[in-house]
Amino acid sequence: MPRARIHRIPTSSPDDTSGLRALINAGDLDPSKLIAIIGKTEGNGCVNDFTRAFAVSALTQALGEDSTGVSMVMSGGTEGGLSPHIVTFEVLADTGPGPAMAIGTGLSRDLEAHELGTFAQIDCVAETVTAAVKSADLTGAADVHFVQVKCPLLTADRIAASRAPVATPDTLKSMGLSRGASALGVALALGEIDLATAKAAKIGSDPDIWSGRASTSAGIELMGHEIVVLGMSDSWTGPLRVDHAVMTDAIDIASVAQALARLGVGETTRLRVVFAKAEASSSGLIRGQRHTMLDDSDIASTRHARAFVGGVLAGLTGSSDLYVSGGAEHQGPDGGGPTALIAEQI
Amino acid sequence: MPRARIHRIPTSSPDDTSGLRALINAGDLDPSKLIAIIGKTEGNGCVNDFTRAFAVSALTQALGEDSTGVSMVMSGGTEGGLSPHIVTFEVLADTGPGPAMAIGTGLSRDLEAHELGTFAQIDCVAETVTAAVKSADLTGAADVHFVQVKCPLLTADRIAASRAPVATPDTLKSMGLSRGASALGVALALGEIDLATAKAAKIGSDPDIWSGRASTSAGIELMGHEIVVLGMSDSWTGPLRVDHAVMTDAIDIASVAQALARLGVGETTRLRVVFAKAEASSSGLIRGQRHTMLDDSDIASTRHARAFVGGVLAGLTGSSDLYVSGGAEHQGPDGGGPTALIAEQI
Amino acid sequence: MPRARIHRIPTSSPDDTSGLRALINAGDLDPSKLIAIIGKTEGNGCVNDFTRAFAVSALTQALGEDSTGVSMVMSGGTEGGLSPHIVTFEVLADTGPGPAMAIGTGLSRDLEAHELGTFAQIDCVAETVTAAVKSADLTGAADVHFVQVKCPLLTADRIAASRAPVATPDTLKSMGLSRGASALGVALALGEIDLATAKAAKIGSDPDIWSGRASTSAGIELMGHEIVVLGMSDSWTGPLRVDHAVMTDAIDIASVAQALARLGVGETTRLRVVFAKAEASSSGLIRGQRHTMLDDSDIASTRHARAFVGGVLAGLTGSSDLYVSGGAEHQGPDGGGPTALIAEQI
Amino acid sequence: MPRARIHRIPTSSPDDTSGLRALINAGDLDPSKLIAIIGKTEGNGCVNDFTRAFAVSALTQALGEDSTGVSMVMSGGTEGGLSPHIVTFEVLADTGPGPAMAIGTGLSRDLEAHELGTFAQIDCVAETVTAAVKSADLTGAADVHFVQVKCPLLTADRIAASRAPVATPDTLKSMGLSRGASALGVALALGEIDLATAKAAKIGSDPDIWSGRASTSAGIELMGHEIVVLGMSDSWTGPLRVDHAVMTDAIDIASVAQALARLGVGETTRLRVVFAKAEASSSGLIRGQRHTMLDDSDIASTRHARAFVGGVLAGLTGSSDLYVSGGAEHQGPDGGGPTALIAEQI
Repeated sequence: MPRARIHRIPTSSPDDTSGLRALINAGDLDPSKLIAIIGKTEGNGCVNDFTRAFAVSALTQALGEDSTGVSMVMSGGTEGGLSPHIVTFEVLADTGPGPAMAIGTGLSRDLEAHELGTFAQIDCVAETVTAAVKSADLTGAADVHFVQVKCPLLTADRIAASRAPVATPDTLKSMGLSRGASALGVALALGEIDLATAKAAKIGSDPDIWSGRASTSAGIELMGHEIVVLGMSDSWTGPLRVDHAVMTDAIDIASVAQALARLGVGETTRLRVVFAKAEASSSGLIRGQRHTMLDDSDIASTRHARAFVGGVLAGLTGSSDLYVSGGAEHQGPDGGGPTALIAEQI
Repeated sequence: MPRARIHRIPTSSPDDTSGLRALINAGDLDPSKLIAIIGKTEGNGCVNDFTRAFAVSALTQALGEDSTGVSMVMSGGTEGGLSPHIVTFEVLADTGPGPAMAIGTGLSRDLEAHELGTFAQIDCVAETVTAAVKSADLTGAADVHFVQVKCPLLTADRIAASRAPVATPDTLKSMGLSRGASALGVALALGEIDLATAKAAKIGSDPDIWSGRASTSAGIELMGHEIVVLGMSDSWTGPLRVDHAVMTDAIDIASVAQALARLGVGETTRLRVVFAKAEASSSGLIRGQRHTMLDDSDIASTRHARAFVGGVLAGLTGSSDLYVSGGAEHQGPDGGGPTALIAEQI
Repeated sequence: MPRARIHRIPTSSPDDTSGLRALINAGDLDPSKLIAIIGKTEGNGCVNDFTRAFAVSALTQALGEDSTGVSMVMSGGTEGGLSPHIVTFEVLADTGPGPAMAIGTGLSRDLEAHELGTFAQIDCVAETVTAAVKSADLTGAADVHFVQVKCPLLTADRIAASRAPVATPDTLKSMGLSRGASALGVALALGEIDLATAKAAKIGSDPDIWSGRASTSAGIELMGHEIVVLGMSDSWTGPLRVDHAVMTDAIDIASVAQALARLGVGETTRLRVVFAKAEASSSGLIRGQRHTMLDDSDIASTRHARAFVGGVLAGLTGSSDLYVSGGAEHQGPDGGGPTALIAEQI
Repeated sequence: MPRARIHRIPTSSPDDTSGLRALINAGDLDPSKLIAIIGKTEGNGCVNDFTRAFAVSALTQALGEDSTGVSMVMSGGTEGGLSPHIVTFEVLADTGPGPAMAIGTGLSRDLEAHELGTFAQIDCVAETVTAAVKSADLTGAADVHFVQVKCPLLTADRIAASRAPVATPDTLKSMGLSRGASALGVALALGEIDLATAKAAKIGSDPDIWSGRASTSAGIELMGHEIVVLGMSDSWTGPLRVDHAVMTDAIDIASVAQALARLGVGETTRLRVVFAKAEASSSGLIRGQRHTMLDDSDIASTRHARAFVGGVLAGLTGSSDLYVSGGAEHQGPDGGGPTALIAEQI
């Protein structure tokens, strides 16, 4: 019977693997059981953020042969007080009662540059998510609380080399299209939208079509998709629980507080991990008040949003080592975003 | 008997005075009674932020002769979801019970460039604050809840023209020294520190000496100090109440929640205005977790801190039109900062 | 007989009008003869650059009634070593030999938000340029060497208020579309392209269609177009001469050196003013070497290009108070741009 | 008899080693003969630029055991049109006439955090340079044309862990102090200043004391100093020649043009490599015209200066794959900087 184990490990730089190695050396982490590492690195989280690839390179070196098959999803950007860290996911064999948190992973084929931001990407992601859900022994989409997708972006080089026209010549904008198409792929796989809707969707500009459980990040270091699925399954055991909330706007703490209560945080459990998506509302407003994130040509709006929503959630949870990821296209309602919470029984 | 009246007015750009003019035209704001305008503008809040001066220029033009004697304190930087706005302060004549919120203002002499960041600046500010407290009929320092100071900064031009060595050749750093010296001036005037401590203080690098009620912002548009004092006085009447809290770190919502409770917000009053200071802790940590604000050479740490603490307070209060000002040198403990709250009886 | 007079005036901040006022007070500049002021201000040159509007506001105040009818075109961004300054254009009455530099100006109607970046904008600009050329007594398009257009941009507010779909929801991108459509308007007016080409042009993504004499800048402070035309006319007199060059890429100094030689700079004339457009080549290459301007999410490519081309031209001319303006969509070939040079007989 | 061989290799990302590996595979580069790699990577060149360490990590992996003893000096920042690339230096055995370009390298001990920016760092660098000059068989300091030093910087972590007070708590500023002390170490070793001057120097604020041949870059990835010395020696053979120029300000192309002429570039040789230092003049002026680099809180002045001087030199040389490094404290006169040029006989 599988049991999930997680570690939340602070990092002092993108290539810092000392915490990981210390846990391995102490026998608290079995690298042969690792299936995923999700982390925040301290780059700008946009096109020219090489901290993600640097972290993956360092983790791969540190793990050696054990790195094979480990999904590594690094999200750049620790603006505001956010704290760089990684979360490791192991699957151990154990016996005990269920239900408990279950994990599945998947890796899609490489996209071609001209497929990015089109239905071809939606379809590619949906197929991989469906397989990952099945691999985690999750009985249905209703038991899935979080789907993390690391997706590709376009660079000037990739655009120049493309054999067909690309969706956008703007490299920063390509990140948004890729995140959006990936989120729609999750929504399609989880039944949040149907195939006709997915095919008709205007990717990146149709804010009413969204997944409440997708979290997608674009990175320069891959052309495929790395996928990690979290849910609750009767076939898994152990002390971990996962739930999710959909923030309706950037300052909606009520929905997250309710999920914390459902998990019994502070009563029967303690909070271990927070995953959240953040974005600037396209209306330019938060509860009727103007924000300036979309008109700022010095700082990308994704950076503003991570810092701000990081503050919102850090104030609520009392901790700053949160995974807050920018760019929530088709992930939750416009200006809001999905949040997933992992708690551990005390 | 004086009564304070305030308006919180959203602005669509630094030079937008349409909201102010509409209130005047509707008879809801009497420009001849104005004594102060405090606002947030959407520049970078650092050296080359001309949105502050542009706002002051536009307000001065809009008010015409009524602008004389009105303290105008614009703080740059609406990072994250913060919303540009101004708060107007009028003093009307009225009768009724006290105590109520009282306001005083003051304007110091111009500093010389070489005085910035030295005891001469502390002394200059302390003298002006003392006079402003007296002008507001506040019986003692204990009744003072907020002292806003707009202070100068050094530019390359001012440094080159200085007749004596300046405290720092780094223009961004000069803003911190000016804010710090001004805060120590407030602390000295309010009896939070004594004269010997003020004289011995290492300005900008002595985080244990601070004011719990000072809020200081540096701007390119003046060489003197504009000062606004808020407190509770038996000699004033009206529905406004003011209190303050000192955040012990960037995510300390408990202290602010207590002040909201003391004011009866949500019960007998509604929250009208929030003033807060924000900064990156010099330890590089928030509750033991590393932040990256001080190592980021792309975005000034003051911008990170405003976005993040803006999120913390917006999550708590449910609103984003907050006055969160960066650079809290000697304003509250390291990494935290003073917060002032104005509520109105329902 | 008209004679053009110019002054190149350094500014110490966006609202510095002291140099202008000093010239007026000394009798060296007659404000009633002013028809245009073109300048560089020190903002980011992108969407949230309020230094342009601040400069226009200050100049308007300083000139009082004389500001009526004066075209004011401020271009933001003095990256690298570029030096903020304004150039004033007066038209005096005189007698003497021709030909000499002639000036014409024009002001278009306000665009609606949804017209920006479409043929409606091309048409609007072309009509205004044609009128301005005629007003300057320029006999034909061949005598025109420089057409400066100040054009509008979209903001989150303007997009939200638009009564029809806009060309792009991305405010920074709207600047490029506006500059591009305006340049095509110039090309159409000067016969560099024909009407069919203008109507079929993919604005912003058709780099082979361009004007060799257009210089367009987008600003938040207007919704119409301010146009200034410079050329050589037998009907004008005085010591000023104007010529132009088209840089084929960002480091093409040969074409500019030839124009300097044609003008006799260093022999019979001295260089007074340089106007140039700069942009990052969409190929991502300069003479086969990769540049990183388009992949940088921290600094807009327009800022990189101004700094770099500013260096190229400052090295060649020995001076840094150059008008180098970013965003050369449809202004010269991809990665290059038009340059205009004003020289004065010694 | 030693012969130096160099390759200038473009890179498509910080970790791109494909060009290096292709040369090795083709037999055109012998990794066992490598002694140094100097390169430009596309980060911000400031504190949180991890592209330098990522490049060193990738090169080390690609070279395997051959990486031992190879000095790797990566300078971050390819602003403007500058092109990321590396230059490899091999020492082959050959016979033939001299003189020719000679190379020496050195590696200092690790500094302690509190030594950074003090005479201890000057002394440490001087000693290592002297040894490197000797190792290259350069008979005297007069034959040395270029000394590249990679030096450390302070981070928030290093400051917190320091056992003694550090020179500055500002991490960005620590880069300047480190570059400055390293340059003075070069000046001392080459006899450009004497020991008394070095001991009395106010590091970072004494612009009249400088080396005309030092080029120093700070990076987060080391605490010691990597040193590469280039000069002309009768004991070396081969087609490479090196010379240097000192730019007196940011737009001084005359001095560089003279060095190009001395080397016979365009006549008997072709230009292979340009190394240059760039900085914003502390006066705030370039030939009397104001620049805004030091007042810009959005973009570090080092980034402005690299972009601008990159343009100056690219215009002159017709190529953009130049090593232009920011932060020229004590490297050439204030606002200018040393430039080294390698040419190859045709």
